Amino acid sequence: MINKIIKKIKEGQHFLITSHTKLDGDALGSELALYCMLSDLGKKAVIYNEDKTPDHYSFLPSAEKIANKLDDVSKFDVAFILDCSELERVGEKAKEIARIKTLINIDHHISNNGFSPLKLWDGQASSTGELIFRLFEKMRAKMSPEICTNLYAAILTDTGGFRYTNTTKDTLYAAGKLVENGADPQWISENIYENDSPVKIILMKKALETLSLDFQNQVGSLVVTKSALKESGATYEHTEGFVEIPRSVKGISVSILYTQLEDNYYKLSLRSKGKISVEKIAKKFGGGGHANAAACRIKGNIEVVKEEVLEAIKETR
Amino acid sequence: MINKIIKKIKEGQHFLITSHTKLDGDALGSELALYCMLSDLGKKAVIYNEDKTPDHYSFLPSAEKIANKLDDVSKFDVAFILDCSELERVGEKAKEIARIKTLINIDHHISNNGFSPLKLWDGQASSTGELIFRLFEKMRAKMSPEICTNLYAAILTDTGGFRYTNTTKDTLYAAGKLVENGADPQWISENIYENDSPVKIILMKKALETLSLDFQNQVGSLVVTKSALKESGATYEHTEGFVEIPRSVKGISVSILYTQLEDNYYKLSLRSKGKISVEKIAKKFGGGGHANAAACRIKGNIEVVKEEVLEAIKETR
Repeated sequence: MINKIIKKIKEGQHFLITSHTKLDGDALGSELALYCMLSDLGKKAVIYNEDKTPDHYSFLPSAEKIANKLDDVSKFDVAFILDCSELERVGEKAKEIARIKTLINIDHHISNNGFSPLKLWDGQASSTGELIFRLFEKMRAKMSPEICTNLYAAILTDTGGFRYTNTTKDTLYAAGKLVENGADPQWISENIYENDSPVKIILMKKALETLSLDFQNQVGSLVVTKSALKESGATYEHTEGFVEIPRSVKGISVSILYTQLEDNYYKLSLRSKGKISVEKIAKKFGGGGHANAAACRIKGNIEVVKEEVLEAIKETR
Repeated sequence: MINKIIKKIKEGQHFLITSHTKLDGDALGSELALYCMLSDLGKKAVIYNEDKTPDHYSFLPSAEKIANKLDDVSKFDVAFILDCSELERVGEKAKEIARIKTLINIDHHISNNGFSPLKLWDGQASSTGELIFRLFEKMRAKMSPEICTNLYAAILTDTGGFRYTNTTKDTLYAAGKLVENGADPQWISENIYENDSPVKIILMKKALETLSLDFQNQVGSLVVTKSALKESGATYEHTEGFVEIPRSVKGISVSILYTQLEDNYYKLSLRSKGKISVEKIAKKFGGGGHANAAACRIKGNIEVVKEEVLEAIKETR
């Protein structure tokens, strides 16, 4: 299969690269690494994402090339659909993209629905970035510092900084190789994790007031309300990483961040230390993700929502 | 030099292993890895530390073997002094330990004073754990899961979770090899970073109220007072990691945690994102450490202390 993909890369001239909405480091780093590799080969490539690039990923090499508009798809020979378990994850343009002659799906979600016959898929891989690293190794692509920086960022973020259960020897060897070829671990980590707006800390203070620790069920949570966001001058982006706070407490297995989207409507970010699959919990509410990190949305009063989630966790044990 | 150390290991029968006071993950992981290796070879080994093992490191394999008392040193052929730039760092027993026939210093502090002629020293190495990994590779020691867990913990903690500038390709390759031989990155990270007492979060809330961000000088700080500790039911151990909070803010280069030890007496933990060496700043106040992570103690009123530190930072630029 991987050889077929390499053949398509060699034969193709005009490539579309896309990924899911609610962009993360793995989606962006993977797209940009692929973009840099294709450019190095003298191919034409366009990155299209429905959502805008979050600020703290704008440092990634070639991030300024990402487009948020997609016009005519007829010019593309090949479309890379990265880090998507289903084609629909790319957003409103899914149907148009489906018309492109050759689709190639590179993904590591266990829930992948096999929408693309041509795929590089491994549910055990830490990240789509790690799969692209494998592809580049196989095709002996030139590992430029730009490519290495993008792939390092992809792997770093999808392993929670090499902390999740998906961190394997291959993940760390790949990271080592990327550093050997020009990725700077400190600079990448600083840009992603140490580049916050001060309002984030103000918001964190407010969120901490909602801390709930249920040791009997090993569930910890924080709530970010619309009013907390407003009062601290913060946006949804500033809640990133908050879900790690209850996770840090001894005896807590599942950590949840409830972010209020509307009155009686919450986005849930779920994290597990490994014993419980939060992907299974998110799936019950129409969401998805990985065993250790997942997300979903639930309508209802916060107390009712919390109760429903607790029931779902109990059923999953 | 490394061959001389290997010869001493082969010839010796009774080993003392020790490290600095104010134990950290690198000191403990390095000691325990060495202990496991010597035990595997059928040698007698004793680990002595002046300070007790912090709770969140008690999961390390063989941690229960560490002694906090040292009686007769005459029985030892060899003493390993790990992660110490000076012999005095081991504490009150330094002079007694100095009497042991052969001293071997394994260390990566740039400030190492060369107290031991027999040494494995590299100021560029991420950690003493990485140096012990090199030693074990060179002597083809059996890399048991216990050894790998201890060395992974050592490397992980001294690189701030692979985030500091000391993280190199060799660091990541070593981490990969340790995982290949049985270290579990998730489990180790969980024990070290996600095993906090809930009182830590209560203390964090209080500490956040003291947040100071000086963007002109790129300095951020938090203060933990004795009364904050008392009110939250926390101990000094619970302040670990707080210094990373101001460090996470964009535009902050140097982060400082002031922990009140007595009235008008503070312990400073300093972190840098790389541009400024906090080791130089700590040294001005009689402390030490590395370019990215250092510590010292200063007497005085908090406002005066802060002013003195700011002056020292300005001089270091």
